[in-house]
Amino acid sequence: MTPEFRRDPLHHTWVVFAPKRQRRPQEFGAPAMPGAGPLDPFAAGNERLTPYEVFALREDPSRPNEAGWRVRVVPNRYPAMEIEGPLASKPVGPYDHLSGIGAHEVVIETPDGDRELEELPVPAIADVLVAWRERINDLDRDLRFQHIYIFKNVGPTAGASLGHAHSQIVALPIIPPLVEGKLLRARAHYQAKQRSLFADILHTEREDGSRLVAENDSFLLFCPYASRFPFELAIFPKRHHPDYASCAAPELQDLAEVLRFALQRLSSVLQKPGYNLLLHTAPLRRRSTENFASTRDDYCWHLEITPRFNPLAGFEVGLGSFINTVFPEEAARYLRGEAKE
Amino acid sequence: MTPEFRRDPLHHTWVVFAPKRQRRPQEFGAPAMPGAGPLDPFAAGNERLTPYEVFALREDPSRPNEAGWRVRVVPNRYPAMEIEGPLASKPVGPYDHLSGIGAHEVVIETPDGDRELEELPVPAIADVLVAWRERINDLDRDLRFQHIYIFKNVGPTAGASLGHAHSQIVALPIIPPLVEGKLLRARAHYQAKQRSLFADILHTEREDGSRLVAENDSFLLFCPYASRFPFELAIFPKRHHPDYASCAAPELQDLAEVLRFALQRLSSVLQKPGYNLLLHTAPLRRRSTENFASTRDDYCWHLEITPRFNPLAGFEVGLGSFINTVFPEEAARYLRGEAKE
Repeated sequence: MTPEFRRDPLHHTWVVFAPKRQRRPQEFGAPAMPGAGPLDPFAAGNERLTPYEVFALREDPSRPNEAGWRVRVVPNRYPAMEIEGPLASKPVGPYDHLSGIGAHEVVIETPDGDRELEELPVPAIADVLVAWRERINDLDRDLRFQHIYIFKNVGPTAGASLGHAHSQIVALPIIPPLVEGKLLRARAHYQAKQRSLFADILHTEREDGSRLVAENDSFLLFCPYASRFPFELAIFPKRHHPDYASCAAPELQDLAEVLRFALQRLSSVLQKPGYNLLLHTAPLRRRSTENFASTRDDYCWHLEITPRFNPLAGFEVGLGSFINTVFPEEAARYLRGEAKE
Repeated sequence: MTPEFRRDPLHHTWVVFAPKRQRRPQEFGAPAMPGAGPLDPFAAGNERLTPYEVFALREDPSRPNEAGWRVRVVPNRYPAMEIEGPLASKPVGPYDHLSGIGAHEVVIETPDGDRELEELPVPAIADVLVAWRERINDLDRDLRFQHIYIFKNVGPTAGASLGHAHSQIVALPIIPPLVEGKLLRARAHYQAKQRSLFADILHTEREDGSRLVAENDSFLLFCPYASRFPFELAIFPKRHHPDYASCAAPELQDLAEVLRFALQRLSSVLQKPGYNLLLHTAPLRRRSTENFASTRDDYCWHLEITPRFNPLAGFEVGLGSFINTVFPEEAARYLRGEAKE
């Protein structure tokens, strides 16, 4: 069986069916991706345990698929989608069907399996951010893809199954529903006000200050007004641009700095919580429809960090609303170091 | 601090801030609701450990808040929202703020703490379904509420923290985003086709048959075409009606029968998985806006059952899309008993 995208008209969300990640019904309690076992497949020296790398930042004179790398990107061994094949869409009664084409890659953030991302020095974190940018630029050339999304699952509560620091890249032939919603609202806001929604939020958070956690030359770090999760964080760039891939080296250094600070503060205040890191960048506009053609002024790339304590339950799964026990103003006080930990 | 609803224009989802459920930052790993402890507060004889009941089905001559009940509904001791107070809405910069008014009740499904819902006989399950209906009819009289939602979290992966069989009722002063999306799509479908989206799905699933699991006089049980979770199930009524509360006794008996069968099959095939049960009924139309006034023909109440194995991770949280490893056609074969368990 090959992967498929499916959508029904009631929920209108794309679901990726990934039979290659399937196990027998009795095994559903096990993690979705087998753990590292005795050998860490992401450690330096174990390069033969992963598919061939598609990108790496290396020390001279090391060679591909050998040790000597600082950051290494490989195809996911258990991909949700298949990279090879044509894209075909068809109706199935009232439903939508699309071939399960997509890229699913793993960014190995450090050769050292014992270090979390935030324990790396700023230049090493910037290397990871450069790898993200370079993979976006490469995957952007594939005309089958509409959207690229990069995320990180840390800890079992956030869906991680491997401990070695890594992030994941997916390139999708569809625009997922939460992304589409953000784009449409950002566009409507811009059309109504001739101001970017992101600029308005940035302005509000700087002026109000109660949810602000940190700031450097290029970025603002804050707890969102309607945080869905306790201690949720957002990182907004001050330079308004739809594409993360537009970031030059100095901006990525600044991002590495603020990201490291954010993760270190979360780790300190909450004792290494599980979290997701979510990189939202505009859909690939080269082949996007007219609807999304004007994202330059109205949409801005951004990062979200969502600490994960309790499982999302029936309230969240059925309603798309959230219950949060911590006001962002209080979380910000803790993260700024003003409240006692 | 009192509860609040907040919404930002980027995510456009209502978040309930529930400070009364808050703990200190160090305690975020603990369950959201304290466990039963040595005494089960939901057991017969322990009625004094809960707030006063708002509804019960009892044997004569038992009295309120004493033993003798079959099903008992009490306010949640750790409510997400407050039941008392006026409803006030205001802008906060670019954001929306609404007072945290709402009902949050617990339906204790059986006096026996050792029995799961599906282990009860059909008439006892029907009692639970009657309690849901009666609470909806009562809460419907409160003009502050827009929407009533009933759900059940079973097992730690699905967000449950108490083992004693129970469901939860929330009455909300807002229409949550996933509900709004369903309503708008159902209306658009009806306007385009002069047929209900629900009737079209019912027709498709009966005709195709590959995802059908069971059927009785009043209900169809099937695995949805775009199931978000492995072994997800939907129960659609054959009588098209927007309101669950319109169900008379015979229909609730049929629902109890099909629900019991569904949960028993899941329990058998997947060895008692965690799951959420989600009851979707139309928003309270008496004071709804013109937008939702015509739900009689275009919207139909329905039940969803979502088995929960792995935590929702960065892919799902950031995109609103899902990765599912099991095709619904295969899940249906297992649930019908045709595939080897």
